[in-house]
Order: sequence, then C-alpha cells, then structure tokens
Amino acid sequence: MSLHPFDEAVALQPTDQPGRWRGHTHAEWANMVGPFGGMTAAVLLRAVELQPERIGEPVALTVNFAAPVADGPFDIVAQAVRTNRTNQHWLIELWQDGAVKTNATAVFGIRRGTWSDTEQAMPIVPKPEDVAESGLPDTIVWARNYEMRYIKGGVPGLAARPEPSSVTTLWARDRGGRTLDFPSVTAMSDIFYPRVFLRQGAMSPAGTISLTTYFHADAQNLAAVGGDYILASARANRFSRGYFDQSAELWSATGDLLVTTHQMVYFKA
Amino acid sequence: MSLHPFDEAVALQPTDQPGRWRGHTHAEWANMVGPFGGMTAAVLLRAVELQPERIGEPVALTVNFAAPVADGPFDIVAQAVRTNRTNQHWLIELWQDGAVKTNATAVFGIRRGTWSDTEQAMPIVPKPEDVAESGLPDTIVWARNYEMRYIKGGVPGLAARPEPSSVTTLWARDRGGRTLDFPSVTAMSDIFYPRVFLRQGAMSPAGTISLTTYFHADAQNLAAVGGDYILASARANRFSRGYFDQSAELWSATGDLLVTTHQMVYFKA
Repeated sequence: MSLHPFDEAVALQPTDQPGRWRGHTHAEWANMVGPFGGMTAAVLLRAVELQPERIGEPVALTVNFAAPVADGPFDIVAQAVRTNRTNQHWLIELWQDGAVKTNATAVFGIRRGTWSDTEQAMPIVPKPEDVAESGLPDTIVWARNYEMRYIKGGVPGLAARPEPSSVTTLWARDRGGRTLDFPSVTAMSDIFYPRVFLRQGAMSPAGTISLTTYFHADAQNLAAVGGDYILASARANRFSRGYFDQSAELWSATGDLLVTTHQMVYFKA
Repeated sequence: MSLHPFDEAVALQPTDQPGRWRGHTHAEWANMVGPFGGMTAAVLLRAVELQPERIGEPVALTVNFAAPVADGPFDIVAQAVRTNRTNQHWLIELWQDGAVKTNATAVFGIRRGTWSDTEQAMPIVPKPEDVAESGLPDTIVWARNYEMRYIKGGVPGLAARPEPSSVTTLWARDRGGRTLDFPSVTAMSDIFYPRVFLRQGAMSPAGTISLTTYFHADAQNLAAVGGDYILASARANRFSRGYFDQSAELWSATGDLLVTTHQMVYFKA
C-alpha cells in the first residue's frame, strides 16, 4: 500500500539523538523554489507530535522562514522549553548543511470543557459544487494536491488589472481525500498566494517570512471534517515598505472555525 | 535627571557573555502576578535592538509566555539565528533561576520604498477629548502608565452583563508623554484586557500564552506620533475549550496603521 503524498512528505525518521528527526523534501510538494512553506510548517509540527514527552494538542504555532530550504534531506530538532501542568512550549528548528533554515515555536495544550463561542461570522458563499474548479499556475507544483474552487480573488491572469480588495475566498480539499489532522490543517494555513498579486493584478517576487497559526479545533473536530472541503478566506491589512500582513480563517463546511492564521510577507514590487 | 518609568523598565545591562543582557522587573509595570506581558515583550525586543550585529528594524515578533516571570532580576539571551542581506532572524529567551520563562522569535528587516496601501479601515470614532477617561481596575498597576479613553468595550464593572461582542476600542497614550518607539508600541500591543471578560460580563482567570506583533510603521513613523494618542481596537474570533484568540490594530491619530497584533489566550471560565 502506498502512502498518501502528504503522509510521505511529513514522514520523519528517528536519529540517534533524542529530539532529532530526519526528513526529506517531497517532489509533489515543491514550490517555485524549494518546498511549499505550508508543508515545512506541517513537518515542524509533526516533529513535536512524535516526541514521546509531548502533552496535549497544538494551540499555537509560529514558523519563521529564515532561509530557503533546499530540495533534499533535512533534520528537525524539537525541544520542550517548558512543560506546565496543562501546556507545553516547544522550540523547533529545521537544519540543512549545518545551518538553521526554518525556526519555530509551538504551544501545545490539554483542552477542557469551557464556555465556547464563535464570534467571527462564516462568509456566506455558494456550495462547492456550484463553484468552478480552478487553481494556481502549473509551476506551483504543491497546489496540484488540492482541489481549489475560488469564490472570490482567484490568482490574477495575464490580462488582470489591480483589484481594490485583497480578499481571497475559496473552497479547498485534499485531492486524495486524506482525513484532516493537525499537520494538514497547518499546511492549509498557507494555501493562499501572496495578497500583493491580487492588489497589483500581477505576480511578482514575494514570500512568507513568519507564519502564525492558532488552532481552535481539536483532533476529534478535525477528524470529523474527514476529506471534505474547507472554506479558506484571507485578506491583507497593510502593505508597507516591502512587507505586508495577511489574516485568514479556515472553516469546516459545517461552520466550525478550525484555525485562524496570520503571516507577514516580504514583497518586492 | 530621572528616567521615564518605561525606559527604566526596558533598561538592560551588558553581561560578560555576548548576547546576554541583565534586566529587572519594575514595580510600576506590575500585573496582578508578575510583570505586564506587554513589558516583557518590549524588553525582549529591546535586547535585539541593543545587539551590535542587529540589522534593520522590527518586522515581526512572537513572544511565548511559557512560565510566570517572578518579580526581580532576569537575563535575556538574544541570538541571531540567521542573517540575510535584508533581514535577520532572532531567537530570544528570558531566563530566571536557571529556567526559560519567556521565549520569542523576531524578524528584523531593512525597509525600502515599494507600492504601499492600507486596506484595513480605521474605526470611525469620536476624538479623544470627547471620550471620558477611565482605565483598568487599580490592582492592574501597569495600566496606570496609560491614559485610557474607552470608546467601546470598557472593562466590565460589578453590575456588568455578558456582551454579544468582544470588541474593545480605546484611545490610549503614555501618561508621561514618552515618544513612541518599537519597544513601547510592542508593549501597547498587549494593552487589552482579556476578551472573555467582556463576553461573560465578569473577570475570571485568563492569560496570554502567545503574542505576535507585525510592525507596519518604521522608526520615523513612530517618532512622528510622539506622545500622542493611539487608537487601539481588538476582538476575538473564537473561544473554544480553554483558549481564545484576539486580533487587534493600533493606529496613530492621523490614521497610520502602526501594528497589527494577534494573541492566543488561556481562559478558565
């Protein structure tokens, strides 16, 4: 039985050092240069999940893309900085050729019953079957793993003009029907192309420099989504002197706000 | 000449180890237990600013509150994980009694002229002089450093009832008229009391577990604000099983979006 390409990409082998794992970039998750940042984030989170002393489930993850990850093998070092009664703080680094390429912090926590409420409203959108399938340009290899149906703010084509809004909203699901889990929802936090493309009506050099994801769903909520569509919606707040921010939400089709996610992005244009 | 209490609180002394600085909590910046989290974030950022090899200005900062900081001295260790041509990635830790109490990552970058735009709209609000001054309860010592004028969502009183919205919007300025800079705008990123108080109409145990701030202003923009009012507005997206998130913006009175900031908060009720 062959693994799903996502499971192949997040697969990590133990090394002879505790907390040090070995992985390899995956051709089907390539970006224009190096791997898809969402996949790098996913494999960093996966390393913590594999640690025997890990408690609870992901609550917050921040990934800093310090240097390009080269295609090939990498090591991930995960270290519990602090273990409290109900939460745990992690420092995670991706190493290649003796240098840190990506560093991250994560908070894991043991969830418990409290008063709960979702205050953010889910966008009112047509059903996935009523939205045409499109996607990202073929040069973005990783995007082929997702079935994408853009409701608003699809990637600008050659004849595109600048748009007044940076909002993109799409239905997306794993093309292989893989059941959602923490690594895969982490990867989907980075499913959006750079907001500056939409505002300028053209593609230009841009890349995420820091990505933060807050997890509102627990493992059971994610498993309940199965391989169904996720509604993903993103917007920028400000573009200023080479950097812009993006805030986004990922919803289940049944209206659960699974994660909120934010990033700071470098851009050149 | 005596220093402003903010400058006293972020003051760091070099130690005999490069990248290791010594500081001390400040009585006027105390929270109910330990120091104000915003001040801890500010002093971590300050440590990077002081490093001789630092390039550029703050772009993104994530601070994880791993364990309570005790009143007294602390050491901050700042390490450049990666230096690129136009940006630099930092790992920063606050140590007390041989343990990491707070850890953080920061991205600094050299800003340059690009296309710019602010897409988020500034809330339409009355002028500061037309809003009554109030604040946080006296037990929150640090809050006395700020003049606060709540337009919406002030801290619930004894007779308060649950509110349907978690939005808080206030004008705030440093009571001593200190000119805004990166550490002080970082501190103000954490000026909001926990959103769950507003939704439940009552105070209850809650604390920030991870705080991310994205800087859109440069040093010159911040200096231009001087000691003037900042418009601060925050809301939660989801409260779920012991954690909620908060997203917020800080604006200059003249309409510059200075920072966007996000946090994940632990709550008990």
